[in-house]
Amino acid sequence: MPSLSFPTAGSLDGIRVIDLTRVISGPFCTQMLGDHGADVIKVEPPRRGDVVRAQGNIVEGLSWYFAQFNRNKRSLTLDLRSESGKALLWRLLEEADVLVENFRPGVLARMGLDDTTLRERFPRLVVGRINGFGSEGPYRDRPAYDFIAQAMSGFMSVNGTSDGEPMRAAPPLSDMVASQNLAFGLCAALVRRERTGRGEIVETALTNGLIGMMGYLAAEYFATDQVPARTGNDHPMVYPYGLFQASDGDVAIAPSNDAMVARLLGALDQLELLEDERFADNRRRMIHREALRDRLNAVIGTRSVAEWIAHLNEAGVPCGRVHSLRDTFADPQVQAQQMRLELDQGKHGRVPTTGFPVKMSEAPAAVYRHVPALGEHTREILTQLGIDETELQRLQDEGVV
Amino acid sequence: MPSLSFPTAGSLDGIRVIDLTRVISGPFCTQMLGDHGADVIKVEPPRRGDVVRAQGNIVEGLSWYFAQFNRNKRSLTLDLRSESGKALLWRLLEEADVLVENFRPGVLARMGLDDTTLRERFPRLVVGRINGFGSEGPYRDRPAYDFIAQAMSGFMSVNGTSDGEPMRAAPPLSDMVASQNLAFGLCAALVRRERTGRGEIVETALTNGLIGMMGYLAAEYFATDQVPARTGNDHPMVYPYGLFQASDGDVAIAPSNDAMVARLLGALDQLELLEDERFADNRRRMIHREALRDRLNAVIGTRSVAEWIAHLNEAGVPCGRVHSLRDTFADPQVQAQQMRLELDQGKHGRVPTTGFPVKMSEAPAAVYRHVPALGEHTREILTQLGIDETELQRLQDEGVV
Repeated sequence: MPSLSFPTAGSLDGIRVIDLTRVISGPFCTQMLGDHGADVIKVEPPRRGDVVRAQGNIVEGLSWYFAQFNRNKRSLTLDLRSESGKALLWRLLEEADVLVENFRPGVLARMGLDDTTLRERFPRLVVGRINGFGSEGPYRDRPAYDFIAQAMSGFMSVNGTSDGEPMRAAPPLSDMVASQNLAFGLCAALVRRERTGRGEIVETALTNGLIGMMGYLAAEYFATDQVPARTGNDHPMVYPYGLFQASDGDVAIAPSNDAMVARLLGALDQLELLEDERFADNRRRMIHREALRDRLNAVIGTRSVAEWIAHLNEAGVPCGRVHSLRDTFADPQVQAQQMRLELDQGKHGRVPTTGFPVKMSEAPAAVYRHVPALGEHTREILTQLGIDETELQRLQDEGVV
Repeated sequence: MPSLSFPTAGSLDGIRVIDLTRVISGPFCTQMLGDHGADVIKVEPPRRGDVVRAQGNIVEGLSWYFAQFNRNKRSLTLDLRSESGKALLWRLLEEADVLVENFRPGVLARMGLDDTTLRERFPRLVVGRINGFGSEGPYRDRPAYDFIAQAMSGFMSVNGTSDGEPMRAAPPLSDMVASQNLAFGLCAALVRRERTGRGEIVETALTNGLIGMMGYLAAEYFATDQVPARTGNDHPMVYPYGLFQASDGDVAIAPSNDAMVARLLGALDQLELLEDERFADNRRRMIHREALRDRLNAVIGTRSVAEWIAHLNEAGVPCGRVHSLRDTFADPQVQAQQMRLELDQGKHGRVPTTGFPVKMSEAPAAVYRHVPALGEHTREILTQLGIDETELQRLQDEGVV
């Protein structure tokens, strides 16, 4: 099978990905691969496709939620429950570098692709797998969902205010983090394949990914045996840090060490506060946090957010405005970084999505392909596989594609 | 320079990383590379080292916060402001595959390593860079910090409750996400290097990474021009979903589609609710959310969390307990997945850290090296570079190492 109809300029040019995933966790991962030049073939059930095609706001016949996760892919419909569909999947895998799936553990094996078969029949194939809890352990068969992973990873226990309940983050963090981990793992496995000639199975799980994000909160729990409290916008270990009230809104300020605290106080013309023994070092500032907060707000309340942001940045103090998503995408820096992209979706119009967070100097991410209609590339891909018109017609008649 | 004193079994075995990063965003990325077998040389300023060595709880002389981000690395002290230090860095780069830095834009160039020099003198080198806002654009020189990126990315605007203020997440999400993106990008660049023989510069930024996580929230904003509201534990688009009150605590429940909602109601023996026209489909359930919440809590309140978790999982409904970090690390699934590791740190004792979220079948992540003391491997690495005892003594006397 020839590669893409055109070579991409991306770092992963020449890598073909067979993508059996749906919803968020898998498609976000394979989109990262496609953004960087891989040839991603999204395999979807005939007629209905990925369920996300029907979710979120549908504009001019296209779900913009679906668009957010499925640019830079080709769509092939294939009924993986049929024998003909399974046979075609095997033919695809013979010419693929990567297979990605986010079924529950065991589903792929029931399609005939258990781990032993994958390794023996497709020794160079790198297999990526995302699930809820991992494919070993007592919960392996439980149904998973981002919210459950946020709850069980401990993330929710530290997200929120001290007087509120444990709280989820609005983005499906566990899906997104597991996707990023898988994209990394797949590329690491491709690096190894260059050395050894052999693929391997790479697995990430929603809960495991978020546990890996607990970072210093986990370290503090391990060190003290005390579970971290929810502290809202206050940092559990440093002060000053947080939202302060300027005359026309909040400003986020986060000096990260004593030198920056001195810069902040200098910029506020409040250096004498350091001579107040309550505020002389971070430990004492944590104890007298409310008193210091009041003192700082008394000064910060005298000028506008814009004035403070200009003034404090000038002084080298990390600070910024709390942006709504409208503010974010209108921001000149965000625009300079092209973090809002527009896809040309033909009859569906121009569709905005978020941009590429990984910038490459020689082989930058790009929009190589629009978001595919369901089965848009079925004929193209099957023809490249060597399927003739008669067989294609038969597959269509049987509802396999 | 020979590789590691022992080969690792990891996917990135044979890849040498020169790591100039400090604090969280860089060290988390390079630890991912080290976990998977790369030879990571952490370059630290003589005498003080990475500032995180002195932060968080220090147990038996070791910061467990530092340990959380610095296993699987060797430590080399080097004064990069001195001419001898810069010369040694060049020698290291001649035998390296990857350089990673998280200075502010321009700092590396002022050390003589501007982009042109890097590409010309080290054409095979892959350079990784993490900063706050990206190295182009009006904010490139602003000081950055996780909290500011959480504010400016729009993340805080959707995190929190409708009656509360925009809120940061407790883990430094922007640092962690940019690290994961960079780890992916570096490996993608290594894949390309196999094909082209040339390295490239890979950059991620704290704000860009979090913007990339806005996913369907960004899509909904683009489609409606309405900024998403903060909805706490409620999902903005589906119901039932959220925390429900069992007799002895909360249970998180998240059926993801109509079929699962029917399974949930069946398991609660409340299938007749679907005949109530207020609850017949998701759109109407969103409108009558509070009424349905009350009906569900009336049933869920009659039994314990443990009973519901067993019963609902049996029925195939995603659900779980809200875990504290103590619950998380005590959980049998988390233990089966080895998401709590213990490092043998010799005189510092056994130090727990979070485990490996990326599982590989052939070349699994492993603890190849303990968390290094400051400069622990200076002599070993310089000897491998061909520095003799006389020169080493001179470098020590001059405070360069």
